[in-house]
Amino acid sequence: MKKIVIALGGNALQDGNKDATAEAQLEIVRETVKHLADIIEDGNMVTITHGNGPQVGRIVIQNELASEVTPAMPFDVCGAMSQGMIGYHMQQALGDEMRKRGIKKPVATVVTQVVVDKEDPAFEKPTKPIGPFYSKEEADKISQEKGYKMIEDSGRGYRRVVASPQPKRIVEIETIKTLIEKDNVVITVGGGGIPVIEEEGMLKGVAAVIDKDLASQRLAEDIDADILIVLTAVEKVAINFGKPNQKNLDRVSTEEMKKYAEEGHFAPGSMLPKVLAAIRFVESRPGRKAIITSLEKAKDAIKGLSGTIIE
Amino acid sequence: MKKIVIALGGNALQDGNKDATAEAQLEIVRETVKHLADIIEDGNMVTITHGNGPQVGRIVIQNELASEVTPAMPFDVCGAMSQGMIGYHMQQALGDEMRKRGIKKPVATVVTQVVVDKEDPAFEKPTKPIGPFYSKEEADKISQEKGYKMIEDSGRGYRRVVASPQPKRIVEIETIKTLIEKDNVVITVGGGGIPVIEEEGMLKGVAAVIDKDLASQRLAEDIDADILIVLTAVEKVAINFGKPNQKNLDRVSTEEMKKYAEEGHFAPGSMLPKVLAAIRFVESRPGRKAIITSLEKAKDAIKGLSGTIIE
Repeated sequence: MKKIVIALGGNALQDGNKDATAEAQLEIVRETVKHLADIIEDGNMVTITHGNGPQVGRIVIQNELASEVTPAMPFDVCGAMSQGMIGYHMQQALGDEMRKRGIKKPVATVVTQVVVDKEDPAFEKPTKPIGPFYSKEEADKISQEKGYKMIEDSGRGYRRVVASPQPKRIVEIETIKTLIEKDNVVITVGGGGIPVIEEEGMLKGVAAVIDKDLASQRLAEDIDADILIVLTAVEKVAINFGKPNQKNLDRVSTEEMKKYAEEGHFAPGSMLPKVLAAIRFVESRPGRKAIITSLEKAKDAIKGLSGTIIE
Repeated sequence: MKKIVIALGGNALQDGNKDATAEAQLEIVRETVKHLADIIEDGNMVTITHGNGPQVGRIVIQNELASEVTPAMPFDVCGAMSQGMIGYHMQQALGDEMRKRGIKKPVATVVTQVVVDKEDPAFEKPTKPIGPFYSKEEADKISQEKGYKMIEDSGRGYRRVVASPQPKRIVEIETIKTLIEKDNVVITVGGGGIPVIEEEGMLKGVAAVIDKDLASQRLAEDIDADILIVLTAVEKVAINFGKPNQKNLDRVSTEEMKKYAEEGHFAPGSMLPKVLAAIRFVESRPGRKAIITSLEKAKDAIKGLSGTIIE
């Protein structure tokens, strides 16, 4: 029996921009949880984390569009809402799937805050775009009125950008540990956690996005997991990606991975944070293993039969 | 040391319709948690439930107003979002307050589903208004397009009404019990819980509002609580309320309370469900006690010095 943290990517929860109805999202979640149930059925203690990019983006849009009728909630509160929404679908679908297979474990979502350092240099240069696209004029107006930093994003217009600081501490870690000890499948640090800073002994929500893979690494270390699985769209991490000399990685050391990362093989904001989370976890204690693979291959990868395994 | 379930009313979380910004809500929550921390500091094991009426109403409005840009989430999902939002503020503020006082207990919100019977007669006649007000014409159109039942509400326009079925089972009860045993302050069944029905062994969210006091009663029974405290705006329940012969109730038996309820002393949808939840809890096992009082008087009421105590 292994203690495993599985970090789900956005595609495990929603089908891009195709159909964002609750029914369509739930259908994808119902497929996703089959793979998770497979791993749980193998006897592993699984803790689940997930992204929230598309979902929280839609919540921000809803808040902005209705803001003349009811006040828009700040970004930390939108994140909390997304944890409730995604966690609900996940725990419902996974609970159903486990019951169907006769697996008797409770499943539950813990609303999770993650402390970041208010002096984190990331706050100096926000890079993470969130919410709706605006025209240049609208963006300038918002920037002036609310002090948001707005940037031109992928040629589709202007968006607000927020910082992506490092996760320092998971506020609800004791609760999560207790539940794991008592054989619960816990859904936590959704969207990387609700980012909070400490000020005079009090927590305060901030507009930021904590990378969900780095938050998952923090979690995996804190709960003393054996394996951190970071899910992505592909079976294996590749170097020279998309070139004639592309090479998929099977088993690699953290040293090799660091070298590849330095050589620029991994896209920032995409594969790079996954690789960094994997390296950090493996180096945090001897015997720890990280796997980067697809949802479909995760079960095999745990057995050493697929995925990129970092040791 | 007593095991206590405290059901917070809407006024403990938001100041009516005055200011619904996140900052204003959080300020009220920060006051509310001081009273909860008082009770925890006295050595009691406290579990917290809360309403979500105003909050989920605003989420529904946001979803409706943005529905041409991003699909409106169904009511069960809106409820899940409100649990995330309210739970986040509560656990943050209560955690701060407890830390300030040196109370070392984890605080956490569990996203909570509550099973209702799909044959519950309440589904035959929906009574609970939710979301925005519409004109007669808009209401007719919505009714035709979506099959919603719309009614005229308090002279302010037309609103959707949903059923208010009885809570049968709390899906995440094992998780909640584990956390309480390990000394967590748990925030659960927010808004009465996310209502789900069972269909062929699977859970399915429905548009309904479970009375939060009845859900709190269900919870209090399940976790084997000693005391259920249902908070309201007044210190004591009264008979002949607002009449010259108004009489505040101090200590009453369930028999007396039932008689008063039958005589119509308590307003349906307001004091009546609180009284019914109290009666049910007290009758569920000898030795159990229910208290209906205000947030400010709750601490004294536990000591028998205030509130309406039903035994």
